[in-house]
Amino acid sequence: MDNQELMNYFREAAAEVDETMRADLASVRSRMLGEVLHHGIFNGGKRIRPQLTLLCANLVESGKRPDPSRISRLAIVFEYLHAASLLHDDVIDHAEQRRGKPTANAIWGISPVILAGDFLLSRAMNLAGAVGGAEAMAIVGRATEAMVEAEFLQALTAEEQDASEENYFKVVAGKTGALIAAACEAGVYLAGGSTEQRAAIRLYGENIGLAFQIIDDLLDYQGDPDRTGKAVGNDLVEGKMTLPLIYAMREAYPADLATLDEVLAAPGDDRKGRFVEVKVLIEKYDGFGYARRKAEKLVTAGLAGLTCFGEGRGLSVLKGLASYVLSRDK
Amino acid sequence: MDNQELMNYFREAAAEVDETMRADLASVRSRMLGEVLHHGIFNGGKRIRPQLTLLCANLVESGKRPDPSRISRLAIVFEYLHAASLLHDDVIDHAEQRRGKPTANAIWGISPVILAGDFLLSRAMNLAGAVGGAEAMAIVGRATEAMVEAEFLQALTAEEQDASEENYFKVVAGKTGALIAAACEAGVYLAGGSTEQRAAIRLYGENIGLAFQIIDDLLDYQGDPDRTGKAVGNDLVEGKMTLPLIYAMREAYPADLATLDEVLAAPGDDRKGRFVEVKVLIEKYDGFGYARRKAEKLVTAGLAGLTCFGEGRGLSVLKGLASYVLSRDK
Repeated sequence: MDNQELMNYFREAAAEVDETMRADLASVRSRMLGEVLHHGIFNGGKRIRPQLTLLCANLVESGKRPDPSRISRLAIVFEYLHAASLLHDDVIDHAEQRRGKPTANAIWGISPVILAGDFLLSRAMNLAGAVGGAEAMAIVGRATEAMVEAEFLQALTAEEQDASEENYFKVVAGKTGALIAAACEAGVYLAGGSTEQRAAIRLYGENIGLAFQIIDDLLDYQGDPDRTGKAVGNDLVEGKMTLPLIYAMREAYPADLATLDEVLAAPGDDRKGRFVEVKVLIEKYDGFGYARRKAEKLVTAGLAGLTCFGEGRGLSVLKGLASYVLSRDK
Repeated sequence: MDNQELMNYFREAAAEVDETMRADLASVRSRMLGEVLHHGIFNGGKRIRPQLTLLCANLVESGKRPDPSRISRLAIVFEYLHAASLLHDDVIDHAEQRRGKPTANAIWGISPVILAGDFLLSRAMNLAGAVGGAEAMAIVGRATEAMVEAEFLQALTAEEQDASEENYFKVVAGKTGALIAAACEAGVYLAGGSTEQRAAIRLYGENIGLAFQIIDDLLDYQGDPDRTGKAVGNDLVEGKMTLPLIYAMREAYPADLATLDEVLAAPGDDRKGRFVEVKVLIEKYDGFGYARRKAEKLVTAGLAGLTCFGEGRGLSVLKGLASYVLSRDK
């Protein structure tokens, strides 16, 4: 399945996910809550997480095929959790824009947005329990707690200027990998998958999530703003230690390391003017190559376990997604 | 059981609740998250909600007595939810102090506090699912959604200057009654109570919650600051339409109503200087008497249903709590 076919597939399946969410949110009574939720959820996202739940539920070739409406309702849990975390993140970061549109907090202020996030978190967990019982809850609960712990670890990492690769992966695993892994595992679980299958799909989800983030980090240095719609260099300006930079700093000769340290110690605006210089240094020590190879290895390892599922459309979409994650340029 | 006995009883049982929470939170890895949680939870509260779960689980005289550690873990769900809502409320209100101590957001800023609230919400729902299954989750989910909806209704009520008694009760039922009712119902549910018993204990919990809030409203006008530790008149300064004022405005002659309208339209600081005037007008139309009688009726109705439980220590504590709620002066 090539990238174009994959995108078409996802676009069609996203419509089903959206319909399920609309029906579920019809019970919201407050008009303003409804508006904030609508803004936070129906924002043009690809619905990757719920689609993974749907796909993974179809991977399992068991006699026990759960009712499609149950799978759909379990799937939207992961979009709700994702949307809740974006709503709260934007409040925390005082973000004014997301994907070129004003954030919910820019429109309504922080209070309805904190509450709308709480509502989604609660609704998501309630749905998971209602549809998938205590085991689905546990899958979701582990992911949400990992997400919060990762935010704290990230803050601590920034405070201590910890530039270790270990910490980088811990943070990304918690912030991105955990929820994607849970979305995958929940689908396999609901379809009656084995323990081995659940472990395999978790690894796939977690590794795809990590690889996705690494490519994001690469695009922040190497992307074409006309394709990505975002300027390059944001991570450097924000002082974010991403994998290419972490690797370059580990490998750099003392004089180059001193330059990088000096740039990082400078105010964000000054760092902006030194972006090309930093990019050249990362290039010199093969930081971009290292990060890309790491992403490829993660994807390969994630795919390797999927032999415990039979060949079929579901598996070919998962493979297509893996190759899309590595090849995307936006 | 008189108030003094009741307070002693609650003080002892609170220690057990605290121990269960400490053990449960030992798994938190981030030091800072642990500190924020600790600040938000171990704040000298009476642990009324979890204690109600424990008490209500003991009301049911069935053969099926659940493992005490399960009841304890289900009980703390309601303290977590309460603490999560206080953490997020203080962020929303930019509150600097709670019970004479700095709020978590005053110490750590909003971002760790929003995240800590999310963590507690998620942990609470996860615990409810793990201990009590999908049905306990549903009880909790209904309460958390009602809490959020009530916040939106309150904001709308303030915006539209809606002073109807109906809205007042809807808001209080969502903000205070729903969680207390859920704490009670969860205990009865886990102990295998009947549908009738669950409905009866819900009504008790909801009505006790409403009565508690009405007495709070009365104390804000009539309380002795030396006893309550709070100045009077905060609600008036904040423009909060509480039951005594709502009733007085409904009953007032046009000239008095015009005075009350004028005070409410004035800036908060000006309202402060007119507190005694407003209090006299509420008195004139028996607003305080009306509110107190309403609280008494709610408590009586809440207690009336409890005949479906056998007499015993649990029932006598619930009755004691009901009379404490009405007689408290702080």
